[in-house]
Amino acid sequence: MRDFSGDHRWLSINTATLRVQWPLDRIIDECAQRGIRAISPWRDQVAAVGLHVVAQRLRDTGIELSGYCRGGMFPATTPEARQRALADNRRAVDEAKTLNAPCLVLVVGGLPGALDGTPAHKNIAAARSDVRDGIAATLAYARSVGVPLAIEPLHPMYAADRACVNTLEQALDLCDELDPERSGALGVAVDVYHVWWDPKLQAQIARAGRPRLLAFHVCDWLVPTRDLLTDRGMMGDGVIDVPQIRRWMEDAGFSGYSEVEIFSSENWWKRDGGEVLDVCIARHRSAV
Amino acid sequence: MRDFSGDHRWLSINTATLRVQWPLDRIIDECAQRGIRAISPWRDQVAAVGLHVVAQRLRDTGIELSGYCRGGMFPATTPEARQRALADNRRAVDEAKTLNAPCLVLVVGGLPGALDGTPAHKNIAAARSDVRDGIAATLAYARSVGVPLAIEPLHPMYAADRACVNTLEQALDLCDELDPERSGALGVAVDVYHVWWDPKLQAQIARAGRPRLLAFHVCDWLVPTRDLLTDRGMMGDGVIDVPQIRRWMEDAGFSGYSEVEIFSSENWWKRDGGEVLDVCIARHRSAV
Repeated sequence: MRDFSGDHRWLSINTATLRVQWPLDRIIDECAQRGIRAISPWRDQVAAVGLHVVAQRLRDTGIELSGYCRGGMFPATTPEARQRALADNRRAVDEAKTLNAPCLVLVVGGLPGALDGTPAHKNIAAARSDVRDGIAATLAYARSVGVPLAIEPLHPMYAADRACVNTLEQALDLCDELDPERSGALGVAVDVYHVWWDPKLQAQIARAGRPRLLAFHVCDWLVPTRDLLTDRGMMGDGVIDVPQIRRWMEDAGFSGYSEVEIFSSENWWKRDGGEVLDVCIARHRSAV
Repeated sequence: MRDFSGDHRWLSINTATLRVQWPLDRIIDECAQRGIRAISPWRDQVAAVGLHVVAQRLRDTGIELSGYCRGGMFPATTPEARQRALADNRRAVDEAKTLNAPCLVLVVGGLPGALDGTPAHKNIAAARSDVRDGIAATLAYARSVGVPLAIEPLHPMYAADRACVNTLEQALDLCDELDPERSGALGVAVDVYHVWWDPKLQAQIARAGRPRLLAFHVCDWLVPTRDLLTDRGMMGDGVIDVPQIRRWMEDAGFSGYSEVEIFSSENWWKRDGGEVLDVCIARHRSAV
């Protein structure tokens, strides 16, 4: 396993971690000043600054992407809504290409309408079918553009409203169905927050192997967790054995960035952005 | 599948559903008045009234148990703590026997200390090993007494602090390891709240079969869910397709009670107990 204790060359910052404090151009500059080599931005943060402004700022600072967040949200109840979702995913692929992202992360969606509190139905199998079809269609486009897709299995507590792909095994089954040749065009984003509890985690990471392991996200699971969405912890502050999971990833061939993604309305989003980045660097060295 | 629409003979009330409103003896009486034939009480509620008083009240009213809540909480960091946990589980088995419960439900425990906010370590594999050993020891005693044990896989959001058995597949793997002969002494409690999201749910219920399916708990998953523990919904108010899961249970041979277990600090625990029971009866007929 790579030794992270001496530097932070394999640290990436998912820009949701600082979404409350700074706009994306400021995040890029602050990362550059600290020798952070990679980020993973969200589409709304890119749009707020401007896609080409961001692309230029990345070139100017030499910062690269470890991923682009996010495509997905495929399930729908009408043909029109399905087409809108696919069109939006094609735009996300294009943006990822413009930013030279190594992958577009897919948060696949749950029951249609559930995120707005008005689920259209209770048929999670149908939602999963929509997801398979949506990924298949997006994959055809993404292959042509040259942007790999990374399915991110989300914690089962998000099955209703955010993603009905909830285990690494399920994500890899989709990958095997849609990309049996393991071409590199389709894989997974492994976020420790979503998968740490899974008794099959080690086996499924090994199954994935290098061609499928496109991204690695870190944070921590706090005890107690006070909010389902925005109470993630800094690495080392919770109960996830992050180094163990990184070891499994690297044993399977992963050699990319460790991307810090923390949604924290009551703690990290309330702190000074520079302090957050400095703690990310320190914990990357000591707790990842 | 049995038709529940005409009566509520297969309704059981898990008494946590009314723990804020009434003591257990009152719950028993109120259930009896409504023709509810079964309950599943918690140990603290039994202790508050007195074990033998409860046993007598059950005989007087003719109400039977669909389960007894709960044993488990096996992981520990010292031999003494392990022994205390095993002794406590033996007492739970004895109480279940006194109450003529068809099974003792096991909430197996997570990382030692995590429920108190002070996890002793981050080794969930070690906690799972403790759980296996604890169930094995308790099973030997429970067999001699004649009380089946029902492992309840809990939702992965409880992996840290309440139960590190988090999927039906994992629970059934434990059953197969510890009771390969499928004797009826060890099985599972299937709670829709914990397992509804699982893409392997149908297959694992079929795998379990009648000898392993010892209990069936119902409530609903609300969108949004505002609290990890106490924001469960009444059947029909959320996104779980409860009848679909009951169908899978019955196709696999289950023919027991449908047990309503709702932790709801902001809604059902604030309502009149009689109203809650009446709604349970109505929803049992319309939404289970």
